[in-house]
Amino acid sequence: MTERPYYLGIDLGATSVKAGVVSAEKDLKATFVVDIAGKDAKEVLEAIFTSIRRAVAKAGMTLDDIAAVGVASPGPLDLEAGVICDSPNIHGWRNVPLSKLLNEELGLPAILENDANAAALGEYHHQADPRIKVLAMYTLGTGIGGGIVIDGKALHGAQGNAAELGHIIVEPDGRQCACGQRGCAEAYASANSTAARAAQALQQGCESSLSQVLRAEGALTAKDVADHARQGDALAAKILDQSAYYLALLSVDVWHVVDPQRIVLGGGMAQAGDILLNPVRKHFQQLCWQLQGTGGIEIVLTKLGNQAEMIGAASAAALAFGR
Amino acid sequence: MTERPYYLGIDLGATSVKAGVVSAEKDLKATFVVDIAGKDAKEVLEAIFTSIRRAVAKAGMTLDDIAAVGVASPGPLDLEAGVICDSPNIHGWRNVPLSKLLNEELGLPAILENDANAAALGEYHHQADPRIKVLAMYTLGTGIGGGIVIDGKALHGAQGNAAELGHIIVEPDGRQCACGQRGCAEAYASANSTAARAAQALQQGCESSLSQVLRAEGALTAKDVADHARQGDALAAKILDQSAYYLALLSVDVWHVVDPQRIVLGGGMAQAGDILLNPVRKHFQQLCWQLQGTGGIEIVLTKLGNQAEMIGAASAAALAFGR
Repeated sequence: MTERPYYLGIDLGATSVKAGVVSAEKDLKATFVVDIAGKDAKEVLEAIFTSIRRAVAKAGMTLDDIAAVGVASPGPLDLEAGVICDSPNIHGWRNVPLSKLLNEELGLPAILENDANAAALGEYHHQADPRIKVLAMYTLGTGIGGGIVIDGKALHGAQGNAAELGHIIVEPDGRQCACGQRGCAEAYASANSTAARAAQALQQGCESSLSQVLRAEGALTAKDVADHARQGDALAAKILDQSAYYLALLSVDVWHVVDPQRIVLGGGMAQAGDILLNPVRKHFQQLCWQLQGTGGIEIVLTKLGNQAEMIGAASAAALAFGR
Repeated sequence: MTERPYYLGIDLGATSVKAGVVSAEKDLKATFVVDIAGKDAKEVLEAIFTSIRRAVAKAGMTLDDIAAVGVASPGPLDLEAGVICDSPNIHGWRNVPLSKLLNEELGLPAILENDANAAALGEYHHQADPRIKVLAMYTLGTGIGGGIVIDGKALHGAQGNAAELGHIIVEPDGRQCACGQRGCAEAYASANSTAARAAQALQQGCESSLSQVLRAEGALTAKDVADHARQGDALAAKILDQSAYYLALLSVDVWHVVDPQRIVLGGGMAQAGDILLNPVRKHFQQLCWQLQGTGGIEIVLTKLGNQAEMIGAASAAALAFGR
């Protein structure tokens, strides 16, 4: 019998499926990406199988070298049953028993993980720092995904709803969130909300170099806001600083619940880099008590970038099926 | 060799030491309370030993029947070393190696636990409900202590600072908290803060039947506020409803981090009963998203009252030293 020392991580995104072969030591050996924009449910399933087979071939391996498959997916998921209850991105994906389908197709055990939890697992386990016992992560994109890892495992809570960190209320009776609550962190500091707040400020007559972008493109992105802040635009700088403030406030709350040593900013908006990171750190120091222990917490940018979910999905498989 | 099926729980409070003998099935067999108001460090240590010996005798047992001792204490604590780093109540208690001292005096293994974590352990394990996997608790007193139990164990975090739920920020840039932050839940909804907000409203000229109490007693308590709210006083009702609102908002945040099935209101202010509980439940339903899973969470009053810390301390000992 072979050793099967490799794991497959799948990132089931909105427009692509990424498959990666990861060693037990969490080194990425090969990846393969399949575009799924506009594809139907059956085609997406085929794309997942294809991405896996091609990634394995690219790594110079066969499925016999793979111990298990992990899939990072947006929710809602039934983690225990390995079922995608509903997909925000793939039309017609309801109650898809993906773990079972993967097992039948590939003959390998498979497990699902929430995408932001997977990203947090990736950041925790890849080049793991033995000092870090608890890690929290925000993926800053359309919304804010949250992941918490404690002693190497994702925190799922009683009903699989833990670490929904984007829905911590940072401004009582504040901006309406898509989830139905008001004042969620996601309603201020996600990439989409950051861009939306900038666009609203322009509509209210604020002056900014962003108004040219809005006229030319018809919409703003968080990247526009960060770029113009970097170029010295005052409104863009203010909007980005408000996002940083709310991420810092969120971090105070997360710190007081699970006491992480590291908080990771990930997702597309993390590409803003230090112009986002530094004010988050500054506001955190100002907002959080300075009693014992605060010195130990670090807020950092993702080291895995957009591969965090895929690599973390492989970690989830290793945790579930490894020896 | 005897079976030693009993555990000793100690609640090291501000003015008394409570010792309880608890069976492995979490039944309370006997208690003994020693007053420590105004006592010095050496006398408090003697009081702890006395309370243990008297509780054991009251249960008709000897120390040979006891497997281990757990102590619930306010922090800061070094849980791993079993050291009380500093005591908010006992003059001169700094870096007291209480686990070691108990072990030397009694010949029994001993463990420390944060008092609110111990209370949460007590609520979780006493007449345990097998449906409940994750429980959170607030002890509403001078401040708000927090405890979280996941799969039977207290959540300590990376550096022992987890579950400081009273310091979740519920009102950005809000009331000053003793911890140095602004807008903490504790600054609004603890027993002391509830009374303080009522007194401030009176000073600002609000009319209320509470003004007679303030004149007569020179101060208000949360019990006064609850009593007058129950008697129909509008200001008292408003102040109590605000406390309930902030406890509900806190609960939304706690729910989105650890996904508990049960949140327990404990501490002195929980004696207000339904007049506090019902508005907390009402505000929670209004503040929290109504997506999948919310139906599963219940907010309840403590069932152990002021014995929660003591019984939970015995649970902590059973978890650490039981088989």
